[in-house]
Amino acid sequence: MHEFFKVKKVSEVLSEIKQFESLPKERVFLLEALGRFLAEDLSSPEDLPPFSRATMDGYAVSAKDTFGARETEPVILKVIGEILMGEKPRFSLRPGEAARIATGGMLPEGADAVVMVEYTEENLGLVEIKKPVAPYENIIQQGEDFKKGQIVFARGTQITPAVIGVMAGLGITNIPVRKKPRVAILSTGDELIPPEKPIEPGKIRDINSYSLFAAIKEAGGEPKIYGIVPDVAEELFERLKVAFEENDVVLISGGSSVGTRDYTLKAISQLPGAQLICHGVAVKPGKPTILGKVQEKAIFGLPGQVASALLIFYLMVRPLLLHLQGANEKHLFLKKILAYAERNIPSAPGREDYIRVKLTPFEKGFTATPIFKKSGLISSMAEADGFLRIPESSEGIYEGELAEVFLLP
Amino acid sequence: MHEFFKVKKVSEVLSEIKQFESLPKERVFLLEALGRFLAEDLSSPEDLPPFSRATMDGYAVSAKDTFGARETEPVILKVIGEILMGEKPRFSLRPGEAARIATGGMLPEGADAVVMVEYTEENLGLVEIKKPVAPYENIIQQGEDFKKGQIVFARGTQITPAVIGVMAGLGITNIPVRKKPRVAILSTGDELIPPEKPIEPGKIRDINSYSLFAAIKEAGGEPKIYGIVPDVAEELFERLKVAFEENDVVLISGGSSVGTRDYTLKAISQLPGAQLICHGVAVKPGKPTILGKVQEKAIFGLPGQVASALLIFYLMVRPLLLHLQGANEKHLFLKKILAYAERNIPSAPGREDYIRVKLTPFEKGFTATPIFKKSGLISSMAEADGFLRIPESSEGIYEGELAEVFLLP
Repeated sequence: MHEFFKVKKVSEVLSEIKQFESLPKERVFLLEALGRFLAEDLSSPEDLPPFSRATMDGYAVSAKDTFGARETEPVILKVIGEILMGEKPRFSLRPGEAARIATGGMLPEGADAVVMVEYTEENLGLVEIKKPVAPYENIIQQGEDFKKGQIVFARGTQITPAVIGVMAGLGITNIPVRKKPRVAILSTGDELIPPEKPIEPGKIRDINSYSLFAAIKEAGGEPKIYGIVPDVAEELFERLKVAFEENDVVLISGGSSVGTRDYTLKAISQLPGAQLICHGVAVKPGKPTILGKVQEKAIFGLPGQVASALLIFYLMVRPLLLHLQGANEKHLFLKKILAYAERNIPSAPGREDYIRVKLTPFEKGFTATPIFKKSGLISSMAEADGFLRIPESSEGIYEGELAEVFLLP
Repeated sequence: MHEFFKVKKVSEVLSEIKQFESLPKERVFLLEALGRFLAEDLSSPEDLPPFSRATMDGYAVSAKDTFGARETEPVILKVIGEILMGEKPRFSLRPGEAARIATGGMLPEGADAVVMVEYTEENLGLVEIKKPVAPYENIIQQGEDFKKGQIVFARGTQITPAVIGVMAGLGITNIPVRKKPRVAILSTGDELIPPEKPIEPGKIRDINSYSLFAAIKEAGGEPKIYGIVPDVAEELFERLKVAFEENDVVLISGGSSVGTRDYTLKAISQLPGAQLICHGVAVKPGKPTILGKVQEKAIFGLPGQVASALLIFYLMVRPLLLHLQGANEKHLFLKKILAYAERNIPSAPGREDYIRVKLTPFEKGFTATPIFKKSGLISSMAEADGFLRIPESSEGIYEGELAEVFLLP
């Protein structure tokens, strides 16, 4: 830890974050995989669907047998049987033949389409076809969803309900993912008491440990609260050492006064092999953020102001947690939309500004209304739908201008 | 169950859904409450913060004592002490006095602002103030976040990390929410086999049970898979009866062929007190949806096509599950944005169309590119970012027009 004061841009911190190694792989059962990220490319062990199947109730036919069919001049085909659901047909179609089939039924050899029952009339073993079908009409072809051997999902794909559906369909039930990051939360400050204790004069309840706990869970991590550390350098170091050994990431929150900030920096630097990635970020709010790297583990010193701590969480910690889980680049950041600024929002160039905003839909999109409250107030975060970003090169956003808004998850 | 064929609009089904009773209340610990919904209005048992506190390191002062201060002509105040972090000051300020204070410290009586340490110089018990402060500058006032007795959050509010932070700050750790809905999943179809079994000719793996399981979890429900029911009316009824007794909501998926659809309808109607809310919805895909109400419990017959089943889940089942959890109206539906159609998308009037789309950001917002694939293909859902809605009165969307897109969660 050489450089004492190392202010970085948000983008610089983010590129440093991507240099942390992802966590080891593990395999989980399909139904446990929701929200996690594939640790390997997944290829299809078989065709999906495994055979060509009907998507309508009707008659399996060879499409070319139906060409020219009309209401007034139907084509007549011989019905050679019925296809039972869940069974392989015991016959194949020859020209001029058809077979009854229900939705989901397997097409017999010789058939390449299904005529909907509404356009047919069956009598004495013959069926009148009153409307032609094109080849492959009203069927799903074998392998139309996925072909055997094809890459189905790339490494880093997030496992959504539809992805789980695909894996179920392909018979893949043992899913390679990466371990969930264990994340320690320490809060520093002699003024803090836990929320369940009665309030005392001069004390304030620990907000950050609890809101960070929830935010870590939402980001797929496994949070653990290590409690409130008094403003004593040795105690912070001892507690940090334990938290560091038991976890993949450590968040030290609080320490907003200059003295405590120094303790945090010192405690991190005392861990063997500590490297300081940044001390200060060119962002408002959240400037006094610290990030250290110790033996492939990340330690953040987060600002004490509650709204600042959560912003930095979403801006830097959450991307790291997702990266450690092997998430694809596009999943690392909060979902972003564009919204029209409801009023002028000034900003100082040289740093990025993130303004808490409420979003109101109108006929052209969203209006973003800034919530101008101090970053020590948690209510401003509870009211916000997202953060409006003002780039570091900008002196602000004009009323009616489009701006990027990151949506709170 | 009188009306046999009862096609409803999506909006009609949604207003029926809101008539189901929310589930009973329960209390959970703060850290277990993430993602759930407040079952009661929450009022503030105390002021937050409980006292006026500094947001900067510096000197607590009476702002009017600093008026006129300049670099070249500082105001000089007497330093009467230091405020210790986490303690009530043992003195109050009189005119002409100041006290050292760190970020988070409690303001003494007589102080209403803090001068940042950067604009001061202390010597021999006196401090030079080189810049004036306005009243309340660099402090957060007692109750500025929330005042005692104030309604902090209304019933139905979703519990986010910031909401958890507020509750921690106010000492509220025992949170009133509503029970999670237990949701049964039955799949019907002689062609289905579970994903872990080897594939057989004519069979296809059960996709819907697994993707619905995951979607129910995302929506805060407690899913349980009741397995694959053969296409035999009595077996479906027996299995449905058990699932109905053990759960708050039942989803019967599959039954896309006319015969099986009839079984589903018949099985639902055999339950005592069954009312048919809809049989058929004016929506594409998803038309063959059934919704029955049996003793305050909902039973859905979902379409068998995988993409249709998931669409109807997001359009109707998810809102019901959130409503049962006591969610505020605005949380019931998927997040909605506007996006520019990448091409003409035709639609038949008289029904709502939901087109799976991929979203691509550009400088004015998002382009929505339709994924034109059959609704029996699960790949189309796995690729989609959301559903573009074409209202029932419309004949389609033109290229470049703005359209509503519901984002997949």
